[in-house]
Amino acid sequence: MVRVAIVGGTGYTGVEALRLLAGRDDVEVVAVTSRHAAGRRVDAEFPNLRGVSELEFSTPDEALLAECDVVVFATPNGTAMHQVPPLLDAGVRVVDVSADFRLRDAAEWARWYGTEHACPERLAEAVYGLPEVYRDAIREARLVANPGCYATAVQLGLLPLVEDGVVDPRRLVASATSGSTGAGRKERLDLLLAETGDSTRAYAAGGHRHAAEIRQVLTEAAGQAVGVTFVPHIVPQVRGIQATLFAELTTDVDVQALFEQRYADEPFVDVLPRGSHPETRSVRGANVCRIALHQPESDPARVIVLVVIDNLVKGAAGQAIQNMNLMCGLPETGGLSAVALLP
Amino acid sequence: MVRVAIVGGTGYTGVEALRLLAGRDDVEVVAVTSRHAAGRRVDAEFPNLRGVSELEFSTPDEALLAECDVVVFATPNGTAMHQVPPLLDAGVRVVDVSADFRLRDAAEWARWYGTEHACPERLAEAVYGLPEVYRDAIREARLVANPGCYATAVQLGLLPLVEDGVVDPRRLVASATSGSTGAGRKERLDLLLAETGDSTRAYAAGGHRHAAEIRQVLTEAAGQAVGVTFVPHIVPQVRGIQATLFAELTTDVDVQALFEQRYADEPFVDVLPRGSHPETRSVRGANVCRIALHQPESDPARVIVLVVIDNLVKGAAGQAIQNMNLMCGLPETGGLSAVALLP
Amino acid sequence: MVRVAIVGGTGYTGVEALRLLAGRDDVEVVAVTSRHAAGRRVDAEFPNLRGVSELEFSTPDEALLAECDVVVFATPNGTAMHQVPPLLDAGVRVVDVSADFRLRDAAEWARWYGTEHACPERLAEAVYGLPEVYRDAIREARLVANPGCYATAVQLGLLPLVEDGVVDPRRLVASATSGSTGAGRKERLDLLLAETGDSTRAYAAGGHRHAAEIRQVLTEAAGQAVGVTFVPHIVPQVRGIQATLFAELTTDVDVQALFEQRYADEPFVDVLPRGSHPETRSVRGANVCRIALHQPESDPARVIVLVVIDNLVKGAAGQAIQNMNLMCGLPETGGLSAVALLP
Amino acid sequence: MVRVAIVGGTGYTGVEALRLLAGRDDVEVVAVTSRHAAGRRVDAEFPNLRGVSELEFSTPDEALLAECDVVVFATPNGTAMHQVPPLLDAGVRVVDVSADFRLRDAAEWARWYGTEHACPERLAEAVYGLPEVYRDAIREARLVANPGCYATAVQLGLLPLVEDGVVDPRRLVASATSGSTGAGRKERLDLLLAETGDSTRAYAAGGHRHAAEIRQVLTEAAGQAVGVTFVPHIVPQVRGIQATLFAELTTDVDVQALFEQRYADEPFVDVLPRGSHPETRSVRGANVCRIALHQPESDPARVIVLVVIDNLVKGAAGQAIQNMNLMCGLPETGGLSAVALLP
Repeated sequence: MVRVAIVGGTGYTGVEALRLLAGRDDVEVVAVTSRHAAGRRVDAEFPNLRGVSELEFSTPDEALLAECDVVVFATPNGTAMHQVPPLLDAGVRVVDVSADFRLRDAAEWARWYGTEHACPERLAEAVYGLPEVYRDAIREARLVANPGCYATAVQLGLLPLVEDGVVDPRRLVASATSGSTGAGRKERLDLLLAETGDSTRAYAAGGHRHAAEIRQVLTEAAGQAVGVTFVPHIVPQVRGIQATLFAELTTDVDVQALFEQRYADEPFVDVLPRGSHPETRSVRGANVCRIALHQPESDPARVIVLVVIDNLVKGAAGQAIQNMNLMCGLPETGGLSAVALLP
Repeated sequence: MVRVAIVGGTGYTGVEALRLLAGRDDVEVVAVTSRHAAGRRVDAEFPNLRGVSELEFSTPDEALLAECDVVVFATPNGTAMHQVPPLLDAGVRVVDVSADFRLRDAAEWARWYGTEHACPERLAEAVYGLPEVYRDAIREARLVANPGCYATAVQLGLLPLVEDGVVDPRRLVASATSGSTGAGRKERLDLLLAETGDSTRAYAAGGHRHAAEIRQVLTEAAGQAVGVTFVPHIVPQVRGIQATLFAELTTDVDVQALFEQRYADEPFVDVLPRGSHPETRSVRGANVCRIALHQPESDPARVIVLVVIDNLVKGAAGQAIQNMNLMCGLPETGGLSAVALLP
Repeated sequence: MVRVAIVGGTGYTGVEALRLLAGRDDVEVVAVTSRHAAGRRVDAEFPNLRGVSELEFSTPDEALLAECDVVVFATPNGTAMHQVPPLLDAGVRVVDVSADFRLRDAAEWARWYGTEHACPERLAEAVYGLPEVYRDAIREARLVANPGCYATAVQLGLLPLVEDGVVDPRRLVASATSGSTGAGRKERLDLLLAETGDSTRAYAAGGHRHAAEIRQVLTEAAGQAVGVTFVPHIVPQVRGIQATLFAELTTDVDVQALFEQRYADEPFVDVLPRGSHPETRSVRGANVCRIALHQPESDPARVIVLVVIDNLVKGAAGQAIQNMNLMCGLPETGGLSAVALLP
Repeated sequence: MVRVAIVGGTGYTGVEALRLLAGRDDVEVVAVTSRHAAGRRVDAEFPNLRGVSELEFSTPDEALLAECDVVVFATPNGTAMHQVPPLLDAGVRVVDVSADFRLRDAAEWARWYGTEHACPERLAEAVYGLPEVYRDAIREARLVANPGCYATAVQLGLLPLVEDGVVDPRRLVASATSGSTGAGRKERLDLLLAETGDSTRAYAAGGHRHAAEIRQVLTEAAGQAVGVTFVPHIVPQVRGIQATLFAELTTDVDVQALFEQRYADEPFVDVLPRGSHPETRSVRGANVCRIALHQPESDPARVIVLVVIDNLVKGAAGQAIQNMNLMCGLPETGGLSAVALLP
């Protein structure tokens, strides 16, 4: 029985992790922490968990956490980097769903996140938690940096192209939409339904934090610097990322076959038939990434990649559990086989 | 008093045109036609018009239409091309909101719309109804082809760049989202709220009809062939197009100033301050196109243009009325000054 | 030219009032106040007003307000009662959109709003701003208490029944849904799209503040105490109240005719044909209340009243302007004739 | 291994049943029929089932169906009554999710459904599939009539009150909202997102079919005729019924305790703490009915019952599987323990 704690459990990653872990007989959630909700029952905050969990939120207790096999950090950015080092020293393994350990370069991290990194010496040890690239390293890792939601979608959609060098790596374009949960569970005026309902807007068009980790992973995959222009948008839905990716082919290649081969053995990447258009609802609640390929009739040298994930599952809590499974020697798909909720 | 008829009035363009024309003292709507709804009161179909319009839908009557000053076709594609020629011959002026007269090349039209054009000899006479480019010709036109909704947004967002030759015209990328009304008022399973609610999907990624008219206009503006890769998406909202456009600058230029100058005298194009992110709700119900410019920190040689319009107003009925105003010598902004509904 | 100021202009009532007042040549908005947004342009906060208003938010300045003809309070509950008395003393007329002056009984007010009333001696002077009942008094009033949004819908739907004494006044039931703007523009977690999207819930089922003003008005209309059980709900839409009202007929009466006669001369109340089911979108953005009557086949002694209003227009800013028009001797419908936005 | 077929599998009940049955090792789905989709893969119609089901839709084959243990009819009303009798004669057990066998009185059925019943002699045999009332009979039944979605919510919310005779049974009022999937998967204009988005409306206020089955069950529970006034509404969400029920207490009773005791042993009915307001999202995708009780301060002799279910789960496919489990001697909760998807 793997003993797990979730730190920062009042956000959407927390409740989603509890949902996915419910009913497993190989994993026990021993604590869900939250400073401001301590003492409150988890199912009072998240009524979908009534009858499922008897837990109360607790204050983070280092001694208790140190007794866990795995601690999942579902905290805002800038928290885990303070709390993770002593846990690692105590032999606990960590999956950090926040951004604290995603970038290898502390200066780059500081530039995007607006503060100095608290433990730059630990960055080298962190493994980027995209199993489709780093599976073996994740198995051995003590500290896994769970990818950003947009980053997961964009990386999975571009990896086969840049790994094989079949596109111009300087001219990658990514336009993505996200449901409102992608912004987290925060008291922000601009996230009210009254402000975001029946409307779409881009944001961070001048530079979004996830672009940094996208470039880091794709550059490593390409073996050369890549240029990715990335614009995210918020659309009036609860869950779901849809990413539309544009690249210029530099060689004649069967793109469909390339993707099918690349992901043939991946349990959570589904390459759709030629000409498909995936809907975000087809992955709602499921740890699946669906991908479709197009080459426009007017210019077959362009490739368009359509990608959908549930930002809270393959884009956050589901991928964290996938990583936890790998780290603990459990079946990688454990707890992650629920069918998406459609409609 | 300008006498107007609307042909095909049971769609969203029809009701929106009636809303915009209500209360004008210089325009009279003398008929709204619909074969299948003939005899039914317009306000029974569209209850927002109760107390505003006493009209009934009528069967299209060529004699009656021939007595109008302007006939607006709000019909499905493939209808106007049969009905317009005799009206033109009778001296009536026509605004066609469908796609029948948008492309100059009959073969190109046939390829995209799947049937031979019924009056290819009239295509040369049609003026593309984008006042920001063809205002003078529209004033004199007998037949105006109202632009597609996506085409309006993408063209207005790219025109200053290609007119001035400051970007690589072969590498234009356009990703756009639309509310559900953009697909029209049709009994289609895939447009149910139960199918499109809380979900996003791309469609027509292999080639959308509006790409043809986008290329036609931009090629003319650029003075050379342009390459535009265009992918539309449907998002769970009623109205609103948001287009995110990507181009590569080939020269050092103040993009913000370029757009501000280009549109300085345009009553319906609003260039937002640097760094803005327009929301579709900021144009809900209004005949306005709002545009914002970005150059990503990581690569200032890329320019990102964010554009929003209401697909039913500047993208359809509002622009049709703008064109009608121009054709009839009325003030261009007549009936089009309502403020957008936000929230 | 009537000079108007709006106090507390950063909420939804504020922006909606500015939208409705734009373009009027008989009313001038001289100030829009907001302590926390002072110095910020109004159109930076509400981009739909770009090109419409050049105003900046200002700090409330008693001297400036004292020079206005009318001051509209769009403040949270508990603010106007402190600021209104000196303005009244200075001869300014006031429309208070908050709840501060709606109840005649200060003790009742204190019970519902959780604090003592700051100027109970002014309550008797305040006129309840429902023109369909109190039109003559509003014309003469110095202080008008604009009704609550739910209260407007429920009162207009039940008034003809209780005025004529055709239903059992102790057994009135009202179930109503509201879009999210009804809760105001506040940084509240439970109003996020991520929390309210794709979900419905009742709230305040044990007792909602608007029930008090509903009872006050209906009791006066009935000439005896009425019992109203009222439950509001929040649904995933931006605007719109739909109220379904249930009553037991105590006499044989033509309910449809009763309503048609009661509201025959009302410019903003629309009684639909028998058997209709009004949609909230049919009043989106319009100062209209639409009502439909039903008597179930299984029990014709029950009457069901369906009512829709836009909570921000007839339920708030529109009704405030209707009241202002009446108070200032302007045409009652001035600025309020815009057609609802459908779809 | 229980062998199951689903007849009429292209609707929302069909896909939901397949989702819920996926991964069970005690039930095998041997056929999913659809005349118009025959030959098409189920996962092409419902991409959430990719990797989960290899089935194709097939034409209904009586011989194949006759070999099943259970056949679930997910057909439109009026189909099952023709196809069920021969299956029953062949020894197959049937769960009919349509309305064909819900009413005991054939004349009443004909009045509501507009056609004569095809096998009135079978109505007496059908057991109404509400396990909370008819569990023992369901276990023995050959033919179970799965309740309507609204009926499930209203019955579960009123049963404890009428069974114990603590309310006036002639004065029951039920107002309920439903997501759009409640209307089924049909090419209907009035169900488009463009028509139903950001809007609410009542429908069938003169009499809805589910009122008949509500009255039948409650009358039996009360031991006397009950009067229920029922009005349904459609709101802009995909799934979820929220019912608000009003009754007049005729005796002093602890309503909270009454409900808690009534449902103490029910695996799928959750009585919330006093003063709660259940959200439909708290049951999204789960076979759970959550109930909360209120007595308004202003009149404690009224009781307000708030009920939420997922119309496609406890209101359709989930309850059908619950009934199938009971009929086949499987654990009642088999396949029905998934946690609701929140947010």
